Amino acid sequence: MINYTIKNTNSFFKKDFGLYLYIMIKVVIIGGGNLATHLATTFQHTDEVNLIQVYNRSLASISHFSSFCAVTDLMSEIMTADVYICAVSDSAITDVQEKMMPSTGIFVHTSGAVSIDVLKGDHIGVFYPLQSFTKGKVVNFKSIPICIEAKNNADILLLKKLASAISDQVYKINSEQRKMLHIAAVFVNNFVNHLYKIGEDICVENEIPFEILQPIIEETAKKIKEISPTEAQTGPAKRADINTLALHEKELDMNKLTIYKLLTNAILKNR
Amino acid sequence: MINYTIKNTNSFFKKDFGLYLYIMIKVVIIGGGNLATHLATTFQHTDEVNLIQVYNRSLASISHFSSFCAVTDLMSEIMTADVYICAVSDSAITDVQEKMMPSTGIFVHTSGAVSIDVLKGDHIGVFYPLQSFTKGKVVNFKSIPICIEAKNNADILLLKKLASAISDQVYKINSEQRKMLHIAAVFVNNFVNHLYKIGEDICVENEIPFEILQPIIEETAKKIKEISPTEAQTGPAKRADINTLALHEKELDMNKLTIYKLLTNAILKNR
Repeated sequence: MINYTIKNTNSFFKKDFGLYLYIMIKVVIIGGGNLATHLATTFQHTDEVNLIQVYNRSLASISHFSSFCAVTDLMSEIMTADVYICAVSDSAITDVQEKMMPSTGIFVHTSGAVSIDVLKGDHIGVFYPLQSFTKGKVVNFKSIPICIEAKNNADILLLKKLASAISDQVYKINSEQRKMLHIAAVFVNNFVNHLYKIGEDICVENEIPFEILQPIIEETAKKIKEISPTEAQTGPAKRADINTLALHEKELDMNKLTIYKLLTNAILKNR
Repeated sequence: MINYTIKNTNSFFKKDFGLYLYIMIKVVIIGGGNLATHLATTFQHTDEVNLIQVYNRSLASISHFSSFCAVTDLMSEIMTADVYICAVSDSAITDVQEKMMPSTGIFVHTSGAVSIDVLKGDHIGVFYPLQSFTKGKVVNFKSIPICIEAKNNADILLLKKLASAISDQVYKINSEQRKMLHIAAVFVNNFVNHLYKIGEDICVENEIPFEILQPIIEETAKKIKEISPTEAQTGPAKRADINTLALHEKELDMNKLTIYKLLTNAILKNR
């Protein structure tokens, strides 16, 4: 069922002063957004992966890939691959699979929030890199966890091989866990970022350079690699320092105050 | 008014193959907590600073400093210094100053939340390092911003010299700004840490290793050094992805749900 390609690669030729045969995984990427772009760029430089094609409904955002792989905006032209990575918006996943209907290979989506069960067939799966991708910002996949899921062991092994080719952190995570992991990521990424925004707003309103907050932001993020967030907690709420809490509440507008009170109470309850 | 000490130091003697005279700032630290301990340890290794004494109401937590400076638990024994750094809890600051009443030098507190105006006299000030200190964790003050405040220029200059001896980031910040900066720090440190705790709880409840979230936590913190938090925002709320938001809300208990809804609405409003 799995259709490997056998190829020479220059890197090993150089290293071993001889011919080395590689088993490369043939990949087609579907999509032209941030994740599709970052994956295509990374696969291009990965010996174990042969990115043969990128599909997108418009060619404009994928035409720059044509120097190293095929690009197309026609479903009918999608080539035969070992893995089809569908990196499109959550709501478009089922539609893409229905229209494509690959006869060989595994079809995987890349979403944190979507269950494997929306896909049809046996050779289906999930290839979910847990990171927040920004257009134009270079990404090193080595330290990005990739969560994989499939319906059978052979497919899991192939996805594991593909994920391990670009990342040092590969986890087998089922759909239920992935949904919860995605929610957790919303708390520690999107919501945390909103608190950074409030911090920046307070700085701007008071003519304080926001850069003063950056060292404490970095330290807060680093600290929980060594101790748990519960142990790491400090501040007026943790100390139940009622005077400081009252002083702070007097200074905040309604939007910030509502968030301040809710999170303060949550920390107070956790003491 | 400022009483410098002139001393030989071995470091310069070695470097210049000759005698070098240093003007060192004589410092007394008051307190035995985290910040007092980190400051004392750092000053000990700082050529420009002569830490002459640490005072605390109990000797137990400061006795280990006796190998390189005087320690005391008697106010009457506090030595004459250029700067007295009062690193005690917010509520104890005025009491300490009243009991001590130094006749020379500047008396500074180290609090984010307390105004300079709670101190009496002219030679008063604030020396506020903006970081979250953990007992036992080594601190590199070089990258910790220190916010200074005083009543006259000569005192500002001395505090700037002292702060610059240990940190590369020294800011003149008045009491009103410092209060707001402290509130901003509660948002980006204490509240952010609570969101990490929720992330960890969700992982534990679903048998997911918390380490999967650490790369996205670090990336979220790093990203805002390059782009503003508003530009950096991603996720279902930013996309107004109503389906995912509804899916997430179904999964959360009341405590987490209240926080999820409030922060989601805040991001939705900000789009």
